[in-house]
Amino acid sequence: MESSRLVTFLSDFGAKSGYAAACELVIYRLTPAARVLNLSHDISPGDVSAGAWLLRRLLPWGPPATHLAVVDPGVGTTRRALCLVCSRGDHLVGPDNGLLVPAADALGGTTMAWALSHERIRELAGIDGDASHTFHGRDIFAPAVALLLQGELPGTLGDPIHPAELVHLEDTVSSTSSAALCAAVSEVDVFGNVQLSLEWSRAMCALHLPDDPSSYGTSRGAGDRTVSGPIPSGEVAIPASAWVQIRAHGGDYAARQVRTYAELEPGELGLLEDSWGCAALVMRGQRAADMLQLSLHDHVELSNLPRPGNPVPTPYRAPHGPHEAK
Amino acid sequence: MESSRLVTFLSDFGAKSGYAAACELVIYRLTPAARVLNLSHDISPGDVSAGAWLLRRLLPWGPPATHLAVVDPGVGTTRRALCLVCSRGDHLVGPDNGLLVPAADALGGTTMAWALSHERIRELAGIDGDASHTFHGRDIFAPAVALLLQGELPGTLGDPIHPAELVHLEDTVSSTSSAALCAAVSEVDVFGNVQLSLEWSRAMCALHLPDDPSSYGTSRGAGDRTVSGPIPSGEVAIPASAWVQIRAHGGDYAARQVRTYAELEPGELGLLEDSWGCAALVMRGQRAADMLQLSLHDHVELSNLPRPGNPVPTPYRAPHGPHEAK
Amino acid sequence: MESSRLVTFLSDFGAKSGYAAACELVIYRLTPAARVLNLSHDISPGDVSAGAWLLRRLLPWGPPATHLAVVDPGVGTTRRALCLVCSRGDHLVGPDNGLLVPAADALGGTTMAWALSHERIRELAGIDGDASHTFHGRDIFAPAVALLLQGELPGTLGDPIHPAELVHLEDTVSSTSSAALCAAVSEVDVFGNVQLSLEWSRAMCALHLPDDPSSYGTSRGAGDRTVSGPIPSGEVAIPASAWVQIRAHGGDYAARQVRTYAELEPGELGLLEDSWGCAALVMRGQRAADMLQLSLHDHVELSNLPRPGNPVPTPYRAPHGPHEAK
Repeated sequence: MESSRLVTFLSDFGAKSGYAAACELVIYRLTPAARVLNLSHDISPGDVSAGAWLLRRLLPWGPPATHLAVVDPGVGTTRRALCLVCSRGDHLVGPDNGLLVPAADALGGTTMAWALSHERIRELAGIDGDASHTFHGRDIFAPAVALLLQGELPGTLGDPIHPAELVHLEDTVSSTSSAALCAAVSEVDVFGNVQLSLEWSRAMCALHLPDDPSSYGTSRGAGDRTVSGPIPSGEVAIPASAWVQIRAHGGDYAARQVRTYAELEPGELGLLEDSWGCAALVMRGQRAADMLQLSLHDHVELSNLPRPGNPVPTPYRAPHGPHEAK
Repeated sequence: MESSRLVTFLSDFGAKSGYAAACELVIYRLTPAARVLNLSHDISPGDVSAGAWLLRRLLPWGPPATHLAVVDPGVGTTRRALCLVCSRGDHLVGPDNGLLVPAADALGGTTMAWALSHERIRELAGIDGDASHTFHGRDIFAPAVALLLQGELPGTLGDPIHPAELVHLEDTVSSTSSAALCAAVSEVDVFGNVQLSLEWSRAMCALHLPDDPSSYGTSRGAGDRTVSGPIPSGEVAIPASAWVQIRAHGGDYAARQVRTYAELEPGELGLLEDSWGCAALVMRGQRAADMLQLSLHDHVELSNLPRPGNPVPTPYRAPHGPHEAK
Repeated sequence: MESSRLVTFLSDFGAKSGYAAACELVIYRLTPAARVLNLSHDISPGDVSAGAWLLRRLLPWGPPATHLAVVDPGVGTTRRALCLVCSRGDHLVGPDNGLLVPAADALGGTTMAWALSHERIRELAGIDGDASHTFHGRDIFAPAVALLLQGELPGTLGDPIHPAELVHLEDTVSSTSSAALCAAVSEVDVFGNVQLSLEWSRAMCALHLPDDPSSYGTSRGAGDRTVSGPIPSGEVAIPASAWVQIRAHGGDYAARQVRTYAELEPGELGLLEDSWGCAALVMRGQRAADMLQLSLHDHVELSNLPRPGNPVPTPYRAPHGPHEAK
């Protein structure tokens, strides 16, 4: 009952302008019992794939709900306005530009899709006049969300379309060769972690590595240290680990496969399964993104480090410049 | 019932400091059933007119509610603390520095106004000790809002004053001549759109142009393209359109009157009715504010382009430098 | 009843990444009736003491509630996950790194403390699989909060520990000599005010000054001016005031003890009791932090100005460079 009134809301409107607040106000005016949870309004302006990626990562963590997402550079064109219904029972409302599809897939897949009718929505919502040409978040999508919360069926708000007709985003992961994976940076977070649009299990499979680095046997034991504890200076034995070669902007780096930040030494680059199940490049208490000079949508290549005689490669350390894998 | 507990909240406190959160905490402590909708806390510090403008634009989109607004450079002086009641049934609470008046006008006008009494509010709210000298948002305004939500009448919180006594902001629009309008930049949004504090119908009237540019007949047809579609290279026929001369920082530009971004060509400057009913300078997928080097509160002049023989002026394109209207 | 479902939430996750939203989604999934109040997610990444300070300042202003706080550079190590119960009835959930203790003290002190068990929390919450190694906010703390909201007792979520075993932060205030206090900058707000981690009464006691500067008798009367009013040019009589010597980055400045911004002249530095009961360095309509070049965690020394013959020192004015106290 409660969660049937929950609306999540993601956009590229920014925190300052009041665009997101205008959408919320419309929802509360039409459906006072609504409860809006703002996911993020700081998607880079017009960056549909960044919005799609965040939406896909977040929504499975919440309850089935009505989800409003607006990253809409095509507003005012004939791009369709959508309502998707997912297997799990969620409703997704937003533009037909690929923004909603990955999240819908993560929620069990799109079972039904509708192209929303501006006229029907505004008539049902009792809104006079035409929608603006530049702000459908407030004028079309928010009223549609409010009507769905009231129990209106999507079928009364638009016309059915086949899910196969939806605009899809390109897959950003590709195998460049049998030995290398190419992935895009899906986010640089406030800690400077570089998150890749590459599922961990897919990466490990392609690199012929086990998913769990602790399966290498010898543990560094750093997981048992407190965060403030110094690294014992006498610790020189290098445990069994796997390194992966990272190519970014033409430079090569060695990243060690770890489970968490604390296993890394200062200055060492790590590759771990992040909390979303994807591969991420990280450092311990430092910004991997700064060291690698990587930003959103940059591409990196991952491949196995050549191992003649299986030597353990020297991990990259910041002061020495990029590691040149031989 | 539900919406009678709705509080909207706007300030210049920033997201980081916790000032806005402190106000919210006070409201929830005194009135647990309150529901606070944060409009924006990113008004430039002390910028009363920017806050007033955003408040005026946003509030008509929501339901009648209690509205808390704090942009208060005069805190600690004898500037009055206000509660305004509007025709529509809204209560506005904040400092008497012009912040609330435009919104009150947009909500049907101020029917009654009260100068809030610090002592009465704190006594009714059961708060011991004096208010701070620097944070009336938390110590005066938030408790007043909480009391209003509980059903206290404004008359118990302060003394009546005549609406004509309220501090008003200056009008930022002026006619510089019979042919030119001067307007201030009221916002630069995350997309780089330049929003002017100038109602669209007022601008079109002064410029002797129709409100709706589609009334010129021939359409460019760009509205029928999908956002990702290329602009057909063969399209050379220039439809009937109106251009307006924009003077900004001494440079002259030609802006084409359009309805939406998609009608513009890359690099072309457009003038459209934004979603708030005001005039805005925009580009398609580019930042008009950067091209024009305009920031909040800068002034621009709008006038009719001279049209000897009524030629269609060349629209400005970014690589060529500012268009010099002859 | 209502406030028993209130969750406050503070972190260093930033607004953009969706980390905070993921925690909220988990809470709403497990406990749909929860109501989350976001305090701030803009704590500097990993800055435990800044988070602790803000939490301590904010929480006493709200009702007893469940408080989630995550500034957790030690995630993935063996640092404990905590639930603290305070005298006032609040529950505090977060990492055992000092983040929660000052707030708990401000809420009456910790009466009971538990080290949360990952396994028990995830079992009670019905979550399959292991927690991530990098995001306990979502995987441990948020489920713990949701369970507490449902009425689970902390004792079912973990094992009791003695409050004396909790990790504490260092005190950042120290007396450098009988005549000088050293304090850290606890925040620079959007207005450029420099807030010190130093209680006002403690500072005034050490400096042998009265808490209330209006007790000096003669008032400047600026408190009776409206904010927009000019400072009467004829006003030259300097009232009885106290100045305090401020040493920052090796430069010396004189700050006048005032009650509010409006008592200051343009360019003059003031020392006042801020709205949290702490000492703050401020200017009127200018950024004291810029003038003093102070940032978060910088240290300043406060001491009595030498007063041979008790002359009134010249207040610092921006154009003249730092005041050299003789």
